[in-house]
Amino acid sequence: MQFTSDNAAAVHPAVWKAMMAADAADAPYDGDRLSRHLDETFSALFGRECAVLWVATGTAANCLALSALVAPHGAVVCHREAHIEMDEAGAPGFYLHGAKLLLADGDDAKVTPRTLAAVVDPIRDDVHQVQPHAISITQASEYGCVYRPEEVAAIAAFARGRGLGFHMDGARFANAVAHLGCSASEAAGDIDALSFGFVKNGGLGAEAIVFFDGEAAKAVRYRRKRAGHLQSKGRFLAAQILAMIEGDLWLENARVANAAAAVLAAAAPERLLHPVEANEVFFACTAAEREALRAQGFAFYDWGADAARLVTAWDARDEHVSALSRALAGL
Amino acid sequence: MQFTSDNAAAVHPAVWKAMMAADAADAPYDGDRLSRHLDETFSALFGRECAVLWVATGTAANCLALSALVAPHGAVVCHREAHIEMDEAGAPGFYLHGAKLLLADGDDAKVTPRTLAAVVDPIRDDVHQVQPHAISITQASEYGCVYRPEEVAAIAAFARGRGLGFHMDGARFANAVAHLGCSASEAAGDIDALSFGFVKNGGLGAEAIVFFDGEAAKAVRYRRKRAGHLQSKGRFLAAQILAMIEGDLWLENARVANAAAAVLAAAAPERLLHPVEANEVFFACTAAEREALRAQGFAFYDWGADAARLVTAWDARDEHVSALSRALAGL
Amino acid sequence: MQFTSDNAAAVHPAVWKAMMAADAADAPYDGDRLSRHLDETFSALFGRECAVLWVATGTAANCLALSALVAPHGAVVCHREAHIEMDEAGAPGFYLHGAKLLLADGDDAKVTPRTLAAVVDPIRDDVHQVQPHAISITQASEYGCVYRPEEVAAIAAFARGRGLGFHMDGARFANAVAHLGCSASEAAGDIDALSFGFVKNGGLGAEAIVFFDGEAAKAVRYRRKRAGHLQSKGRFLAAQILAMIEGDLWLENARVANAAAAVLAAAAPERLLHPVEANEVFFACTAAEREALRAQGFAFYDWGADAARLVTAWDARDEHVSALSRALAGL
Amino acid sequence: MQFTSDNAAAVHPAVWKAMMAADAADAPYDGDRLSRHLDETFSALFGRECAVLWVATGTAANCLALSALVAPHGAVVCHREAHIEMDEAGAPGFYLHGAKLLLADGDDAKVTPRTLAAVVDPIRDDVHQVQPHAISITQASEYGCVYRPEEVAAIAAFARGRGLGFHMDGARFANAVAHLGCSASEAAGDIDALSFGFVKNGGLGAEAIVFFDGEAAKAVRYRRKRAGHLQSKGRFLAAQILAMIEGDLWLENARVANAAAAVLAAAAPERLLHPVEANEVFFACTAAEREALRAQGFAFYDWGADAARLVTAWDARDEHVSALSRALAGL
Repeated sequence: MQFTSDNAAAVHPAVWKAMMAADAADAPYDGDRLSRHLDETFSALFGRECAVLWVATGTAANCLALSALVAPHGAVVCHREAHIEMDEAGAPGFYLHGAKLLLADGDDAKVTPRTLAAVVDPIRDDVHQVQPHAISITQASEYGCVYRPEEVAAIAAFARGRGLGFHMDGARFANAVAHLGCSASEAAGDIDALSFGFVKNGGLGAEAIVFFDGEAAKAVRYRRKRAGHLQSKGRFLAAQILAMIEGDLWLENARVANAAAAVLAAAAPERLLHPVEANEVFFACTAAEREALRAQGFAFYDWGADAARLVTAWDARDEHVSALSRALAGL
Repeated sequence: MQFTSDNAAAVHPAVWKAMMAADAADAPYDGDRLSRHLDETFSALFGRECAVLWVATGTAANCLALSALVAPHGAVVCHREAHIEMDEAGAPGFYLHGAKLLLADGDDAKVTPRTLAAVVDPIRDDVHQVQPHAISITQASEYGCVYRPEEVAAIAAFARGRGLGFHMDGARFANAVAHLGCSASEAAGDIDALSFGFVKNGGLGAEAIVFFDGEAAKAVRYRRKRAGHLQSKGRFLAAQILAMIEGDLWLENARVANAAAAVLAAAAPERLLHPVEANEVFFACTAAEREALRAQGFAFYDWGADAARLVTAWDARDEHVSALSRALAGL
Repeated sequence: MQFTSDNAAAVHPAVWKAMMAADAADAPYDGDRLSRHLDETFSALFGRECAVLWVATGTAANCLALSALVAPHGAVVCHREAHIEMDEAGAPGFYLHGAKLLLADGDDAKVTPRTLAAVVDPIRDDVHQVQPHAISITQASEYGCVYRPEEVAAIAAFARGRGLGFHMDGARFANAVAHLGCSASEAAGDIDALSFGFVKNGGLGAEAIVFFDGEAAKAVRYRRKRAGHLQSKGRFLAAQILAMIEGDLWLENARVANAAAAVLAAAAPERLLHPVEANEVFFACTAAEREALRAQGFAFYDWGADAARLVTAWDARDEHVSALSRALAGL
Repeated sequence: MQFTSDNAAAVHPAVWKAMMAADAADAPYDGDRLSRHLDETFSALFGRECAVLWVATGTAANCLALSALVAPHGAVVCHREAHIEMDEAGAPGFYLHGAKLLLADGDDAKVTPRTLAAVVDPIRDDVHQVQPHAISITQASEYGCVYRPEEVAAIAAFARGRGLGFHMDGARFANAVAHLGCSASEAAGDIDALSFGFVKNGGLGAEAIVFFDGEAAKAVRYRRKRAGHLQSKGRFLAAQILAMIEGDLWLENARVANAAAAVLAAAAPERLLHPVEANEVFFACTAAEREALRAQGFAFYDWGADAARLVTAWDARDEHVSALSRALAGL
C-alpha cells in the first residue's frame, strides 16, 4: 500500500483517453491544435491573460519560469526547505547560470514578509553581494501547508515594494486550491509566473508554466527549446493538461487526495508535525513504529529519525487509507 | 498527406500498449522495474556493456551525452549542417556551459577524417584557441545519408588518435541500421555515446542515451536531474523504449519508412540532391512545382529556394506514398 | 627588434608616473577619487553621457560589454576573423552563458550591412534557431583596417533596424581615430558600448568599457565583480586610463605607431594584403624571406604559409623601423 | 588613519621596483622570463612540485582554483562566513557554472571535520541532491584566525576520506604563516590548490594560484584566458609576486601587519570577539564608541550593530597604531 509519493501514481483514465485521441499526426512542437489552445484555456481559468508553455517536469517548469525573472548575477529568495533548494539537484544554478538561492525561514515551509525581510534587508546595494531578483514560494508548501490568499497578497506586496519578481511553485497547486475552496486566481494571487503541476495529480508527464506577463513568456519559449524541453510530439503534453482542466478534473483529483490525507491526519492528531491542509501528512513516530507500519504493508518515507511522511494521491484506495488510519490510531 | 517530418508521426500501437501496461504505480524516477531493465536490454543489443538513460527529447540526449565528453572550455567538432548546430537553439552552449561547436565540411552532411582534420589540425595548443574535446556525427545524417561501418571506424580512429571523445546523434539510427543491414553494434562502431532515437520512429517522448563507458554515465545521471529531465513517472519512458527494442520493432518501423522514401526517390531520380539511404528525400524543384504538389494535398518543407524535403515515417500510408510518387514523376 | 605585437610593449612613462602618484591608500575597488572621475572624463571626450568601468584586459572588456546586450539564448554577429571568435578562448561563451557567435564575411576583417544581412536575414523567428541580439565590430579591424564614420553609421542603422545591440571592440580604437583624424565620437558612432583599449597603446593593464547607455552599465558593475575583475586597488587602473586620456596621450601614442606602420608599408607596397591604416602590416612573403628577415634580428608572426604580420607600437624605435623598412625593400 | 582594510594599502617599494625593472618588452601573456620562473620559485618555497598561475584578484584565484576541483553539478563546502560565499558577488556560481556552496558552521569562521561532517553526511548519494566535490577553507579565516597545521591535517584527512578536493583561500596566507612561525608548506598542509594572496600584503594587482597537482593546472590555463584573466603584460604580475617571495618580503610585511593588530588587541582584550592571530581585530563596541573613534580620525568598518572591524596592513604607521591603541584603551 503506497503512501510514498504522489509523483509515481497512476495516470488518470481521462488523461490516457485524451492522449490517445491526440494520436493523429499534427504540427510538431507546440504548433498543434491542442497546444495552441492552452493560452485560452488558462486565461479563462484565471480570468486574466495567460501565456502558457508545457514542459515534462516540475523542475523544468520552476527553473524556466524563474529564468524570466532572475539574471545570472541575481538571486531567488525561497524557503530553506523549498523544492528548488532541496530536491532539484542544483537545477536553478544550471538554468539561471549560477544565480543563487537565498534561504528564508518560516513555519510549515512557508515564508512571510517578515522572514523574507530578514534575508533581503541586510543585503546592501553593493556589487560584492548577490542581489535578490525574485521570490519563489511553494503552494501547497513542502510540508503540505497552504498559503491563504491574504498571505500570498502580503508576499506579493513585499515583492512589489522591493522590485522583485514573484514565482509560485504549484507542483501541488491543485491540492492548495481544493483546500482553500477558492478560485485558482485567488489561490495564485498577484504572481508573475506559476508552475502549475499535473504529474502528481493524475498526469503522465506534463506541467504548465503559466505566465501572467506575456512578455516574460517570449524569451522562455527560446529557453525551453534550448533546454531540450520542447518535445516534438507536444500535442500529447497539451492533451494531458487540457484533460485535467476540463470539467475541473484537477480539482476533483486533488479533493480525493486531500480527503485521504485528512482521514490519516484524524487518526493521530497528536502526532502531527504540521497542519494537514493538502495531501501530505508528517507525523512523529519512532523507528520501531515505522517498522511496525511497514510490517503491515505500508510504504512511505522516513522523515529524519523521529518522523515519517505520508503522501496520498488521486488514486488513493479507500481500503488502503482506512487500513493505514487504523494502524496509525493503533500505534 | 504528411511528408513534413517523422517527428510528429503517430505513436505505434505497441508503444501505447506498453505504456498502459506500465500504469500501476512503481518506484519513481528511474528506480522502476522497466528503467532498471534498460542497461541489460541494450547490452544485449550491442553485445557489450552499456549504461542507458532515458530522456524525452533528442536535444536533451545529444547535449547530455556530450556533457560527458566536453569541458566548458572545449569544443565539439561536427558537420556544419549538424542538428546540434542548426536546430537545437544553442542547447549545446547551454548544456556544455559555453563550449563551442567547430564546423566541418563534407558531402551529404557527413564528415570524414579529412574534413575533420581541416578543422582540428590548424588549432594550436595555445590557450587563446578553443581546443576540440569531442567529435559528434549524425547517423543517418541530416541529409538522410548513412555512414558505413568503415567510415565510422575511420572517424573513430581519427578521434582516438587526437584524444577526442566520439558521440553519435542517432535520432534516425534505426533508419541507418535498416539501410546498412548490419547489427546495431556495427552501425555504431567505436563510439563513446549514442543518442538512440525513438520519437521519430514510433515513440511518444523517449530517447535513449547509450554510454559505452559506464563511468561517463555516472555524472550524467546528476546532470539529467539538474536539467529537469528526470521524469518522476520514468517508467513510461522506459516502457516506450523497451517496446521499440522488443522484437526489433525499431528496425521494422525504420524499414517501412526507408522503403517509402525509396519509392519516392525512384520517382524522380534525376532530381535527387543526396543519395536516399534513410527516410529523407531532398529533391530539386521550382517554387511552381512545390505549389503544384501542395495543391494536390502534399505537405512538406521547402529546402531553400530550389529544393524541397520529404520525410517518411513508420506510419507512411501506401496510397499516400504512391500518390506522391506519381506526382513527382509527373512534375 | 620586436614587431610581434603591440600587446607586450613597454609602459609609457606618463602611465608609470600616474600610477605611482596614486600609491597613497584610497577607497578600495572603484570608490577612489580617480575611478570616480572616469565617467566625467569620457563624457567630455565623447561629448555625451558615458558610464565607464575599468578592467584589466580586452577580453574582459569585450565580454562584459556584450553581456549587457546579449541574453544567454541569443547570439552576437561578428566578423569571422573577429578577436572574440578567434583569440579569446571561448570567453564570449563563458560570459554570455553559452550565447553563440554568428560569423559574417567582409574584406579586411570588416563587416558591412550586406554581409551582416547575409547572416541575419536567413534566420527565421523560430525557437529552433539562435536569434541575433547584437553586432560587434572591431575598430581598427583585426587586419589593421579602419571603419570610416559612414561605414559605422550604416552598420548602426542596420542594427537599429533589426533591433540589435551594437558593440565596438576598440582594442586599437586609438589607432583608428589617429588614422581617421576625426573625433573619438565620430569614430565610435552610434554604438551602445565600446571596449576602449589602452594596454596595446602604452598602458600596463587597464581598458575602459564605455557605455553610452547608463542603464546597461548597472548590471555590468555586478557582473564585473562576479567575474573577479573588480580589483581592490582599482585606483591604479583608473590612473592609467586618465593618464592616457590627459593631453591626448592616447592619440599621440597611436600616431607614432601608425606612422611606423606606414613607413613599413611604403617599403613594399606591392606585397600588402590589406590597406595599412593603423599599426599592423600584413604582407606576402615566402618562408625563405621570413627566415632572412629573422636572421637580421626582426621578430614577428607568420601569417599562414605565405605571409607575415608586423605590428608597431607607441615605443617603436626609428632605427628599428628604418632597418626593417630597408630589409623589406630589399627582399 | 586607515584601519578599514588591507586591500587598498600602498604598494611596497620593492614591488614597484620589480615592476619597473620588467618594463622592457618581453614575450606576452605568461611566456615571459618572469612568469616562467614562478613554478620553480614556489616549488622551492613549498618543497614540492608546484604549478603556478598569476591572476589579478583573489576572487579570480579562488574561483579558478575551485574550477579544477568541482564539476558544474557539484558543490563546494565552506564556512558560512567564507569570502567566496559572502563577498564575491556569486563568482563561484559563475566560474563553476552553477555549482553550489554548502555552508558549514564553526567558531572564528573556521570549519572542523565535525562541522563539515554535519553538512556532508546527511547528503544521500541521490541524484536529487547536489553532491559535495571539494572543501574550501580560508587561511587566515575571515575573522582573522589561523588554522594550526594539525587542524588543516584533520580537514585534509576528512577530504581524502570523502573523496573531496581541498582548496585554501590564502588571501591572508602570509599573515597565517607569520603567526604560526612555521613553513609555508606546514601552514598549507595537504591541499590541492592554494590562492596565495599578495594584494593585501604589499602587491598591486597579482595573486598566485598554486596547484600541487600539475594536471589540475592544465585546464585552468585555458579557463584563465577564457575568463579574461590572462593579461598580455603578465610580466608585471609575475614581477610583483617574485618581488614578494624574494627575501621573504611576504613574511616580513605580514609580520608588520600582525604586530600592529596585536598592539590593538592588547589595548582592549576584554572586547575581542575572536582571537587576534593575524591582522584583523573584531571588537565589541557601541555606536557611540564608534562615533567617538571616528571623531578622532580613525576609519574602519562597522561589524553589525555592536562591533567593529580593524584591519592593519604592511604599511601600518606606528604613530597611528599607538594612537588607536590609546583610543581603544580609553573607551
